[in-house]
Amino acid sequence: MKSYRKELWFNVPSRRAFINITSQVEACLRESGIQDGLALVNAMHITASVFINDDESGLHSDYDAWLERLAPHAPTSQYRHNLSGEDNADAHLKRQVMGREVVVAITGGRLDFGPWEQIFYGEFDGQRRKRVLVKIIGE
Amino acid sequence: MKSYRKELWFNVPSRRAFINITSQVEACLRESGIQDGLALVNAMHITASVFINDDESGLHSDYDAWLERLAPHAPTSQYRHNLSGEDNADAHLKRQVMGREVVVAITGGRLDFGPWEQIFYGEFDGQRRKRVLVKIIGE
Amino acid sequence: MKSYRKELWFNVPSRRAFINITSQVEACLRESGIQDGLALVNAMHITASVFINDDESGLHSDYDAWLERLAPHAPTSQYRHNLSGEDNADAHLKRQVMGREVVVAITGGRLDFGPWEQIFYGEFDGQRRKRVLVKIIGE
Repeated sequence: MKSYRKELWFNVPSRRAFINITSQVEACLRESGIQDGLALVNAMHITASVFINDDESGLHSDYDAWLERLAPHAPTSQYRHNLSGEDNADAHLKRQVMGREVVVAITGGRLDFGPWEQIFYGEFDGQRRKRVLVKIIGE
Repeated sequence: MKSYRKELWFNVPSRRAFINITSQVEACLRESGIQDGLALVNAMHITASVFINDDESGLHSDYDAWLERLAPHAPTSQYRHNLSGEDNADAHLKRQVMGREVVVAITGGRLDFGPWEQIFYGEFDGQRRKRVLVKIIGE
Repeated sequence: MKSYRKELWFNVPSRRAFINITSQVEACLRESGIQDGLALVNAMHITASVFINDDESGLHSDYDAWLERLAPHAPTSQYRHNLSGEDNADAHLKRQVMGREVVVAITGGRLDFGPWEQIFYGEFDGQRRKRVLVKIIGE
């Protein structure tokens, strides 16, 4: 069994953003030399997500509006978590809807994807340095 | 390390449906000959889900009503994604709630499940041919 | 490839609770002797979750209130699933928001975590014995 590990770093200038990281994960896969196995890609922070969906800006705008409706940022006083001096309780909720991680099949040295699958980093509490972990196991 | 890959195809006649695919995944597992490892089962399309829950029609009806409340299909004009000529923005949202994939332990040549666990394909934008990927690694 | 399997048992006295199981999963990892690979931790029951987030009681209270808003327990008659004599339809919905499972990278014999990542068992229909599966593969 071969194994590969890499951290991807992000520093998003806004509070929230969706960033396509597919090509960075593909670069990891090439570097790993693994032809067949599983890749885990996960946010290492608990106010961010890694998820797979469409690279379409209208959809990303819909996601943002929808998540704000399900778990609004303001008023920040509506969340007990924010009593600790934080203002990011909503980010912990949004991240649960969008998910922490994806597991992707590796076949023939490639991400084994359907036609529109792309991997995104979802930031819900930006303006600081945060990491994504790429871990690949296989042969 | 052994590895197995198969695509399952679906063409759901309605817009939305939940289909129990447990026996199809079990057939893949038997075909793989893998006794111990991990199985990844994921939707290859971004308006569909694979998830694990109960095979109970009342619950599926509850899921459908609940997802329509969280992310209504109509009016389709409420979503920017639909400005591109699509009418399936809601399906991209519903899929995030229900998830893209499941990872299942394989032990003794079987899906290592609790008493009620069943694997479902969740279709949110049907009436077309779509795929699920089954990838199993182990020994 | 080495493989390890263990069940963790819970009997939560209340209907809902979040329990930090990180140290129990770490004990499994030590027992496995696996240094590098992937760990799957999943609820074996369909009204419970395993998820990764912050060990902060204010946040857990926010999660509970939020999930009750998204999928209220009462009136139980609002769910068709409950016509079968159950009263736990809401638990099946809440579990989809929080997720069934996490997959965690194992590196250097440790859970490969960011600074605040902790693993939780999320119970949404307690007062009975229920299980979590820990499955680790690697070398």
